[in-house]
Amino acid sequence: MTIEDRIAELGIQLPTAPNPVANYVSVQKTGNLLFLSGSGPFENGKPVYQGRVGAELTIDDGKAAARLTALNLISIIKREIRDLSRVKQIVKILAFVACDQEFTKQPNVVDGASDVLVEIFGNRGKHARSAIGAHVLPFNIPIEIEMIVEIENE
Amino acid sequence: MTIEDRIAELGIQLPTAPNPVANYVSVQKTGNLLFLSGSGPFENGKPVYQGRVGAELTIDDGKAAARLTALNLISIIKREIRDLSRVKQIVKILAFVACDQEFTKQPNVVDGASDVLVEIFGNRGKHARSAIGAHVLPFNIPIEIEMIVEIENE
Amino acid sequence: MTIEDRIAELGIQLPTAPNPVANYVSVQKTGNLLFLSGSGPFENGKPVYQGRVGAELTIDDGKAAARLTALNLISIIKREIRDLSRVKQIVKILAFVACDQEFTKQPNVVDGASDVLVEIFGNRGKHARSAIGAHVLPFNIPIEIEMIVEIENE
Repeated sequence: MTIEDRIAELGIQLPTAPNPVANYVSVQKTGNLLFLSGSGPFENGKPVYQGRVGAELTIDDGKAAARLTALNLISIIKREIRDLSRVKQIVKILAFVACDQEFTKQPNVVDGASDVLVEIFGNRGKHARSAIGAHVLPFNIPIEIEMIVEIENE
Repeated sequence: MTIEDRIAELGIQLPTAPNPVANYVSVQKTGNLLFLSGSGPFENGKPVYQGRVGAELTIDDGKAAARLTALNLISIIKREIRDLSRVKQIVKILAFVACDQEFTKQPNVVDGASDVLVEIFGNRGKHARSAIGAHVLPFNIPIEIEMIVEIENE
Repeated sequence: MTIEDRIAELGIQLPTAPNPVANYVSVQKTGNLLFLSGSGPFENGKPVYQGRVGAELTIDDGKAAARLTALNLISIIKREIRDLSRVKQIVKILAFVACDQEFTKQPNVVDGASDVLVEIFGNRGKHARSAIGAHVLPFNIPIEIEMIVEIENE
């Protein structure tokens, strides 16, 4: 079963990866590593979730936003390497959660991303990660995640 | 003298590295690099320090928390590679300091981590680093640090 | 035309790169990657801009600060590898923008850094990036950027 088959089996449809609108790229490759720009909970390039977890948004909203953000990242990887079976390892994610100052459950929010990565990639989806609080993020999104991926070279 | 001897000579006892409680790992290896998940000032998996530097905590509290966080990271490296002499270089740390909005001495706090890394590893402990303010961190810890380490392959 | 010629052609004078004042280094090399410590809008080691974007500072101030920060990073690279033509690719930047809690245009601020990187390095300057809000940064600077660079080995 390919990764694309697995994604279909899970009933997941990858969002269209948004394009950068300035002098940077969604992903830059060095050796067999892909460094991905920070992404968010977008569909058709528009934020689906906005606000702060613990204020306008619940933890469950945050988890759903984290999951959608991970799918955007996967969509960016696919656009870059075409065949997701070339993903050898999701190495690391760095996740910022926009939240109320009293909110301390950022890891639970980021689980929404970690879980879907492992659902899709299995052991190859098990990554190191950091979960950090932020007082505000671009476009008022509740989560931004950047990622490092090891790929099989062609 | 091994690194483990040096740690003993300094009178340091490494804390037991906490285990991730979700779908991620404490450390992911790619090539000869280890990417470590963000860690904090834990003992037996529980936060020893909580609160914001410049508010509930002093700079000295923050430095002590940074030092303990670095020891947690070293403990995670040791669990992964067993022999700390295989550490070729601490490449980089990214440190987030939970602090009052008027507090601008994050680097002094992070020195608590940088200093103990150099005490233990000497030149191999000299790393690039960033020190960033955060309005809140998971579990209300005052500091979270992630790390990249270059190791000698076996 | 060398990169240094291009910098002169653009009328840019690189600032003197500040030296770390503690147990860390401005840049650490592993393989053919340089990991740079977070830097800011410094001249002669002193912050030129201070305050938060959307509060004491405008977006244009923030963009100018981002540009100056990128020049500090380039100055650090040059001190490390002497000849900037050895830069193969600016791989990634991670940028933190100190800002008001209502400010959500961090990407516009960080464009100040991205634009000058591409002006100077062309396609080799096109990087992945993340733009994150912070409630406060060291020395009350409005922006801090860390960078990963791939170089040609000598």
